[in-house]
Amino acid sequence: MRMIDLIEKKRDGQPLSNSEIRFFINGFTAGDIPDYQASALLMAIFFQGMSRAETVNLTMAMAESGDMLDLSDITDYAVDKHSSGGVGDKTSLIVLPLVASFGVPIAKMSGRGLGFTGGTLDKLESISGYDANLSETEFRRIARETGIVLAGQSKSMAPADGKIYALRDVTGTVASLPLIASSIMSKKLAAGAGGIVLDVKAGNGSFMKTPGEARALATAMVRIGVDAGRDMVALLSDMNQPLGAAVGNALEVSEAVKTLKGKGPEDIHDHCVEIAAHMLRLAGRGESRTDLTETRHEVDRALRSGDAFEYFGRMVAAHGGDLRQVEDLSRLPQARLRYNLLARDGGFVAAVEADKVAWAALALGAGRSSKEDAIDHAVGIEIHANVGDPVSAGELLMTVHANDDGRLQAALELLADAVKHSAEPVPRLPLFHGVVEGRDM
Amino acid sequence: MRMIDLIEKKRDGQPLSNSEIRFFINGFTAGDIPDYQASALLMAIFFQGMSRAETVNLTMAMAESGDMLDLSDITDYAVDKHSSGGVGDKTSLIVLPLVASFGVPIAKMSGRGLGFTGGTLDKLESISGYDANLSETEFRRIARETGIVLAGQSKSMAPADGKIYALRDVTGTVASLPLIASSIMSKKLAAGAGGIVLDVKAGNGSFMKTPGEARALATAMVRIGVDAGRDMVALLSDMNQPLGAAVGNALEVSEAVKTLKGKGPEDIHDHCVEIAAHMLRLAGRGESRTDLTETRHEVDRALRSGDAFEYFGRMVAAHGGDLRQVEDLSRLPQARLRYNLLARDGGFVAAVEADKVAWAALALGAGRSSKEDAIDHAVGIEIHANVGDPVSAGELLMTVHANDDGRLQAALELLADAVKHSAEPVPRLPLFHGVVEGRDM
Repeated sequence: MRMIDLIEKKRDGQPLSNSEIRFFINGFTAGDIPDYQASALLMAIFFQGMSRAETVNLTMAMAESGDMLDLSDITDYAVDKHSSGGVGDKTSLIVLPLVASFGVPIAKMSGRGLGFTGGTLDKLESISGYDANLSETEFRRIARETGIVLAGQSKSMAPADGKIYALRDVTGTVASLPLIASSIMSKKLAAGAGGIVLDVKAGNGSFMKTPGEARALATAMVRIGVDAGRDMVALLSDMNQPLGAAVGNALEVSEAVKTLKGKGPEDIHDHCVEIAAHMLRLAGRGESRTDLTETRHEVDRALRSGDAFEYFGRMVAAHGGDLRQVEDLSRLPQARLRYNLLARDGGFVAAVEADKVAWAALALGAGRSSKEDAIDHAVGIEIHANVGDPVSAGELLMTVHANDDGRLQAALELLADAVKHSAEPVPRLPLFHGVVEGRDM
Repeated sequence: MRMIDLIEKKRDGQPLSNSEIRFFINGFTAGDIPDYQASALLMAIFFQGMSRAETVNLTMAMAESGDMLDLSDITDYAVDKHSSGGVGDKTSLIVLPLVASFGVPIAKMSGRGLGFTGGTLDKLESISGYDANLSETEFRRIARETGIVLAGQSKSMAPADGKIYALRDVTGTVASLPLIASSIMSKKLAAGAGGIVLDVKAGNGSFMKTPGEARALATAMVRIGVDAGRDMVALLSDMNQPLGAAVGNALEVSEAVKTLKGKGPEDIHDHCVEIAAHMLRLAGRGESRTDLTETRHEVDRALRSGDAFEYFGRMVAAHGGDLRQVEDLSRLPQARLRYNLLARDGGFVAAVEADKVAWAALALGAGRSSKEDAIDHAVGIEIHANVGDPVSAGELLMTVHANDDGRLQAALELLADAVKHSAEPVPRLPLFHGVVEGRDM
């Protein structure tokens, strides 16, 4: 088999066989296929796409390029979740303890990546002492002993994906649906869960701008999971305004704790109830295995009761984190400067543009634009207005938390027109745009 | 400027500016832009194409990546020719001395490349002592003293093209019209001629299979030349059967000499008259500068007179070649084995498939499939039948010249059904399918 033949085949619109895809993935991971041939193939895939069979074969080949996690000593059915990434998305911090509180063991590995704000692990590292870097032995021990563990993804998981992603990033081949879907799903399949809930965002604060694009990505990922024998569901959620009121690492931990105690903002509360209900349904838990409405009510009651916070505390303690900081949120890292942004006009909030909030958070130092960047856990933005809210001139819209005057100014410039006003009433944004069920694929 | 932005721009169908194209070519030639980004851009060009302006900018950037030959000390107007490559194409060996015999100086550099049979230089090296590797000083001296020189292309000419072609060859990006046209034309523009005649082949023995494809390539190349200020014409010639009766290096030298003495096969004679007439027209020579018909007659008479052979002899002598071999053709390298292929059926020759003859010549050792391959100058195939000829069962169709039994058997297998018969009369193939004039562009 020769790589040049694979490139020409895909270039000419012919599907690649499973053995051809394995040849590429194994050869490229081993360093036998040079980057310049891989990038030519990736660009041909960008233009010609991949069939359902090709996409699942690519995903499995990438998943099996490294260790496949076997969780059978922890649970006979693990459930996992994945978010395509949004602004203020602290869902995992809330949903995982919530699901664990129903007796469903959570043993999750999470990537870091780049982003406007940190990933879930970066957020947890706002807590002093929290160590996300566990050996597999520690990971398994904590999972068995506490029922919940959330660690950094091992480098030996799906190494082909890491290598291919790095190449796509510099060759203009990121924005390809089968490549995006297979990249995400290869890590999920390697992480060992039998059931996976995908939270695919649509809106100006996410990669997919419209519900239609999000549905296409969700469908591709759900099909991969189904073909790989997993139970799958994808929720299409709105990302035109930030999720919840907090954007930034320690600010989001704080909001997650409040939500776990039943006192979170309504949008993040409802969002987490929906995700958790689907996870419990896949795991066959909740009052009814079939009636999602009943499960939702049960999850909502559990979240309001504050009981799920216990599991969050267990997880933090097991990872060496300082529990005093989550019991007294004022002990979390605090920024030196706070700047209040006020409404210039009265009326109704017409938009809180998630992308501008995201760029502002990055400018403050809350995220990474390159792998080497250090994250400032204290900085971020609190948002006091949602689309549809009535607002008076002079009312508080946002509080910017900064540690540096220059960065504060940069963030304020980005935020200057992030909030739009309307004289007429504006409808609230939906939390969800739909669902893609694995059983329908 | 960032390479990733150029890749994404082209990927999304936007034209690249001249400064962007220069950035790519200069950066890639200097080694600042990695192969994997170059191959991604090349694949994007494969799918999105290039505008006329982009194609000429790319060509000029590649031409100017190395030395631009200045022939003004040799002639105030140099004329060049280029063939897109065919089976039995020894046109340069005949046309260049023929044009030189009209007092038009020929100072040509030629590439080697791969091929079924050798290139023009390989053919000339059938003659003992012929040295195509000249210094620029020797090249200029011979041109001035003899009026004709034909040397190997300097490595410092269009180095960007060499580097890009090597990458295209292994990344499935050869078959792109703007990339093919710019590759050929970058070397022609660097070679310093004011007028260029292109001989673009169409048929199963060439890269372009149909006259339509050949016209598209010819048009792209003629436009580049015109935009770069050169006088251009492209002839579309047929390559469904070998050109002339000889395929193989020494066999083709022998046929060229016979043609230069007015005793060549009719097809190669007529083909060379047409190419030479166009070269003379561009150079403003011949009886009439405008009437091509008159020029054709004059060239035909000159070729039949045998006078052009003198210039061939001058060139061979100046390059150190053994003149006795061209004066007595039996002194050229001779193969050990000769095998006569006879017609099984009577009727008319319906096809002499050029591609099969080419593969057979390569199997005999007449060409190179990799740069390191040595060429056997003696081997090849003589073809005694042309499409349309009446033929009787048992009549001689081909003579295979071989130096090795195994290679002979391989060639005979390839040639077994290269000649097709028909019971009904078959029309002769045209020599030319058309012309693309620079003045119409």
